[in-house]
Amino acid sequence: MERVYNFAPGPSMLPLPVLEEVQRDLLCYGNTGMSVMEMSHRSKMYLDIFQETVADLKDVMGIPEGYKVLFLQGGATAMFAAVAMNLMRGGKADYVDSGNFAHNALVEAKKYGEVVVAGSSREDNYTHIPAYTLSPDASYVHITTNNTIYGTRWSKLPETGSVPLVADMSSNILSEVYDVSKFGLIYAGAQKNVAPAGVVIVVVREDLLGNAMPITPKVMNFKEMADKDSMLNTPNCFGIYIAGRVFKWIKAQGGVAELEKINIEKASLLYDFIDNSRLFKGTAVREDRSRMNVTFVTGDPDMDAKFCKEATAKGLVNVKGHRIVGGMRASIYNAMPIEGVRALVSFMKEFEQANA
Amino acid sequence: MERVYNFAPGPSMLPLPVLEEVQRDLLCYGNTGMSVMEMSHRSKMYLDIFQETVADLKDVMGIPEGYKVLFLQGGATAMFAAVAMNLMRGGKADYVDSGNFAHNALVEAKKYGEVVVAGSSREDNYTHIPAYTLSPDASYVHITTNNTIYGTRWSKLPETGSVPLVADMSSNILSEVYDVSKFGLIYAGAQKNVAPAGVVIVVVREDLLGNAMPITPKVMNFKEMADKDSMLNTPNCFGIYIAGRVFKWIKAQGGVAELEKINIEKASLLYDFIDNSRLFKGTAVREDRSRMNVTFVTGDPDMDAKFCKEATAKGLVNVKGHRIVGGMRASIYNAMPIEGVRALVSFMKEFEQANA
Repeated sequence: MERVYNFAPGPSMLPLPVLEEVQRDLLCYGNTGMSVMEMSHRSKMYLDIFQETVADLKDVMGIPEGYKVLFLQGGATAMFAAVAMNLMRGGKADYVDSGNFAHNALVEAKKYGEVVVAGSSREDNYTHIPAYTLSPDASYVHITTNNTIYGTRWSKLPETGSVPLVADMSSNILSEVYDVSKFGLIYAGAQKNVAPAGVVIVVVREDLLGNAMPITPKVMNFKEMADKDSMLNTPNCFGIYIAGRVFKWIKAQGGVAELEKINIEKASLLYDFIDNSRLFKGTAVREDRSRMNVTFVTGDPDMDAKFCKEATAKGLVNVKGHRIVGGMRASIYNAMPIEGVRALVSFMKEFEQANA
Repeated sequence: MERVYNFAPGPSMLPLPVLEEVQRDLLCYGNTGMSVMEMSHRSKMYLDIFQETVADLKDVMGIPEGYKVLFLQGGATAMFAAVAMNLMRGGKADYVDSGNFAHNALVEAKKYGEVVVAGSSREDNYTHIPAYTLSPDASYVHITTNNTIYGTRWSKLPETGSVPLVADMSSNILSEVYDVSKFGLIYAGAQKNVAPAGVVIVVVREDLLGNAMPITPKVMNFKEMADKDSMLNTPNCFGIYIAGRVFKWIKAQGGVAELEKINIEKASLLYDFIDNSRLFKGTAVREDRSRMNVTFVTGDPDMDAKFCKEATAKGLVNVKGHRIVGGMRASIYNAMPIEGVRALVSFMKEFEQANA
């Protein structure tokens, strides 16, 4: 069977050359006589893979000195709790409520300290990034750089002064260049731009480590994990290995800056068509549009369903929008080739001609 | 390169037919046009895999009605915290301290309630399962059915009456038949007998759900995870898929009862040789010997090192013991074929003849 163009919001497409390499080495990696899945996490052969993966992430993301990179488990949802347990320090934190996961993050954080909702677009069904007011005495400010379900993105980061900025970058990490030094902590579930689900990346400024609440589970304690280089217990070794392959693929594409250009081009192809369409309409406000998740509707749920069904038949799969928003969502992460986006736009034209 | 016999304590060998199947389907699973790694966890194609995996585990493990099966993340170490947060109920719990991970479990549980050490063999370097005295009013009794580092195993489970028995089965789940109805909760990191690292299985009696502490992170709340069928957030989809392949492989071998026979035979090959050896000596007391991890020494660290080095050269890898115990450890989980054990015994004979 031919591979499809998979517009799923995550887990989602992985670069084909990475999958081919993983497939080739699945029974025997190099001259080790075993699969990466079978390697002890304490063995030299695996530690070589692990350390190269950390180094490559630092390289592609431009992570400066003074930051630790962790590969943990439990996804961003585990980090919603972990961030608060590690950084709240008995005080309060500002959360900007810009979407479903941003909201889940602040609800979870309330278990561990005072949460201030610094701004919210919840009443507007999260169609835009909200205005916000920051507390000067907050332990940290939490944002979600890209809102997967609603298709919005922070185009300008908040200025938080000496208050650490914490960002959930699950759905746009490595898709555009960020200045890591502006952040106290970045975390991201891997299953959109990095690796299969089951790995969560944490990039944390070292001076923020060491203040976890006593009730913090060991596996969620960033200091203890940093001290053990993510190996306080057995990590998701195979997922981390694939992440490493993806980092090398990113380098081969010319790095994140090159991918950002392509991602802007991919998103523009879709938004330009939508903005001139008689049938389709974008759901997010223009200035906050995501480059990763393009959300649109026809205005008629039956027509939306017809579109999704016919797209699927053409090998353009998982374009159905999240049930909260309805309509369509094309998730076009790094691994989605521009040819896939062109094929989708071409089908949208065809569908419009037949139905509008 | 030829595949080796890998005696690592975990991550460790996976059944070759499983690896071959995973390799074959890595770019495209069935007629889906994508890798399992790329499937949305909410898609019908993935839910079919997931539900079949749960059903197959219930089948091979003989899980009765009234229990929930969860596939979580964070390994057994995450469960050390989660068990206490979910089951302590403001009371106290009995822990039997039979090894390194048993000890780690009780240290972690102290964050969330009163821990009673019901018995310990720590002073004897954990060479045996300790005697113990149980508290009639404990919230639960915690044991570690197999102690990976020390090579010991509970041959007779404690009678806990109406107090729920909780077992960490990370290193012997599915290697022998257990009567699940004797347990309140069973958990197991997957990386020894089930799947690559990154998945932890929880089997929990339904009446024990719903009493988690308010500070329990959502991803560690068994009730919330059970209500969402392990999909409160994105699970380790690919790891769970491989677990499902292993369950089918277990069925093809004739089920756990058949594997148990083979595992007894495999362990006996090693122990019988060790017991009659002029050079090698077992480290665990006979009546508590593990069938999964066979620990032995020559008594001379240099000779041990020589043995490990020469074994490696013969393709018998990772026989070095844990640094706490020293010497050698042959981990012979379900996926280690009896031919691998025969090859190891044969080399031990050869080495003994040359060196003793």
